[in-house]
Amino acid sequence: MKKLQLELAERSYPILIGDQSWSDPILHSLTRNKKVLVISNQTLAPLYMETLLQSLGDADAEQLILEDGERFKTLDTLEKIYDRLLTGQFDRSSVVIALGGGVIGDMAGFAAATYQRGIDFIQVPTTLLAQVDSSVGGKTAVNHPLGKNMIGAFHQPKAVLIDPRTLDTLPDREFSAGMAEVIKYGLIRDRDFFDWLESNIDRLMARDSEAMVEAILISCKTKAEIVAADETEQGQRALLNLGHTFGHAIESAQNYRDWLHGEAVGAGMAMAARMSESLGWLDSAEVEQIENLLQAANLPIKAPDDIEPSKLRDLMSHDKKVQLGQLRLILLKQIGHAEIFSDFEESLLIKTIEQG
Amino acid sequence: MKKLQLELAERSYPILIGDQSWSDPILHSLTRNKKVLVISNQTLAPLYMETLLQSLGDADAEQLILEDGERFKTLDTLEKIYDRLLTGQFDRSSVVIALGGGVIGDMAGFAAATYQRGIDFIQVPTTLLAQVDSSVGGKTAVNHPLGKNMIGAFHQPKAVLIDPRTLDTLPDREFSAGMAEVIKYGLIRDRDFFDWLESNIDRLMARDSEAMVEAILISCKTKAEIVAADETEQGQRALLNLGHTFGHAIESAQNYRDWLHGEAVGAGMAMAARMSESLGWLDSAEVEQIENLLQAANLPIKAPDDIEPSKLRDLMSHDKKVQLGQLRLILLKQIGHAEIFSDFEESLLIKTIEQG
Repeated sequence: MKKLQLELAERSYPILIGDQSWSDPILHSLTRNKKVLVISNQTLAPLYMETLLQSLGDADAEQLILEDGERFKTLDTLEKIYDRLLTGQFDRSSVVIALGGGVIGDMAGFAAATYQRGIDFIQVPTTLLAQVDSSVGGKTAVNHPLGKNMIGAFHQPKAVLIDPRTLDTLPDREFSAGMAEVIKYGLIRDRDFFDWLESNIDRLMARDSEAMVEAILISCKTKAEIVAADETEQGQRALLNLGHTFGHAIESAQNYRDWLHGEAVGAGMAMAARMSESLGWLDSAEVEQIENLLQAANLPIKAPDDIEPSKLRDLMSHDKKVQLGQLRLILLKQIGHAEIFSDFEESLLIKTIEQG
Repeated sequence: MKKLQLELAERSYPILIGDQSWSDPILHSLTRNKKVLVISNQTLAPLYMETLLQSLGDADAEQLILEDGERFKTLDTLEKIYDRLLTGQFDRSSVVIALGGGVIGDMAGFAAATYQRGIDFIQVPTTLLAQVDSSVGGKTAVNHPLGKNMIGAFHQPKAVLIDPRTLDTLPDREFSAGMAEVIKYGLIRDRDFFDWLESNIDRLMARDSEAMVEAILISCKTKAEIVAADETEQGQRALLNLGHTFGHAIESAQNYRDWLHGEAVGAGMAMAARMSESLGWLDSAEVEQIENLLQAANLPIKAPDDIEPSKLRDLMSHDKKVQLGQLRLILLKQIGHAEIFSDFEESLLIKTIEQG
């Protein structure tokens, strides 16, 4: 089993990767003699709830099964979690466990962040997206009709337990969506990892277990280093949002009902790459390399045709990266080197969006 | 003008007390070139909004006027704040100002804590309760039908600006409710202040401005010291909850529709004093002293007759001070010395509740 530590002084926590991670003693030490609420969804609970509850041993554990899907990542669902915590008389010493993908992790984490002003929680991510990205770093949130993740908090988990065997049951589209975030780490600051991904993309898409553990490990390590340096996204953590401002606008235009988050981010990263080319930073061969890798991971490289460019541009202004009315984008100086950029011509952005 | 600093490393902030506090340059420096949303209610906005907006000068300020009352401190009202922030395209650099009492401060603060995972906010408290207690220390929350302040966050303001002239328009009952928290500071750790309050209670109830500034100053100073030592209530900050577990149960039984928070806390502190007497810590003369001071401040010293003791006991189990199923109460070792206590006979608590 691989073990990383996310270093945040008194909020530091371990990230365990391997098929023994759920049965590691840390789960017992964090939940012993406490009330535990395991939050999952209707798709994942039948597959994994029993195994996880067994790992919890003698903890006083209950379960809450939510409907599956990004469209349920709302204040309404959050209220259901609060209702359950209160009717069950969960207290300040209780623990919430998120068993599922990014949606479950974000909501369960935000509920834990705000229930009685903050209780402990543990991430048990079961999708590739959650394993390499959303379960690490303490971002929690729900969506609002006017924008994704607009209501949330920074609340670090006490541990992240990743069992890669859960990827065996992951639908292909969701696997590809997770690969978008894996590729992102190579693009923003690790040219070697990008090269490794190019060489190993076939093994990865076949979910070769050795290759998967390596990809998850490097992804978590990169994310942990960036979060440790900038917990609340004052600076370099924003680089993790490569492709996300375009992507969030796509998701929002679709009311979160069509593309998966990672698919939108895939297209968003390709758009960011093409805008970087327009600025003279990337050459066309590099853009093609990026597009090829995304396509090899079965990801889109253009925004959907049926969204009006002007609508996409408008929705981008609702993004959290907007500061003082100015849109800030993460763009690529080169493959393996992203930067925050706001000093661009509006016409250049429009052109990028119109090209799709 | 009096000035205190709440010391919390990079989250430190000033507390200004005096009739120049709203026009202090700090308000400009915190809001310059930013979008500002001033949140107030229908009672206070007509009295103070214009003055505050003038103090803001050239900031891009908008206002949101909520309905007045504890019963609106809900997730529903919170959603209205989020809707306004999003439709107004407020961003991560925007600032929320809470202009009002504890209800406005708690809700506006929680909205600021969770909007885009946290934006700046400033407390401009206009009630005595908010000036001496809720505006200082970063506790934000909304209520849930099953308990008060059950959903919230710790989110420190950037500044607290207290103009005591706002007390001139405060209804008598609300003034008394604020006095409950002032008296609390004497009871929990400052015998000298308790004695001073006994000697000056007539001047205070007449709202003598010199006496009021002194009482607000000592109260804020005490609270600032306790919060600086224990920001997230792991230890001694819990002492600030003297009378609150009894009080919250009273408020909850009334669905927050009858007594004010401070009135319930007044009765709760008297109950805590009588329970402390049952434990042999206070003598009957001291309990009488406490009851007399509370009554001189026009505060109740018993729970309302129409609430069943068993209901009150049951509601106390929903209190946030409950840990691992065990109720913890703040009780008085002596006047000026409170302690957290959980090792008591259930029968003693029942007796205290039944006595009212």
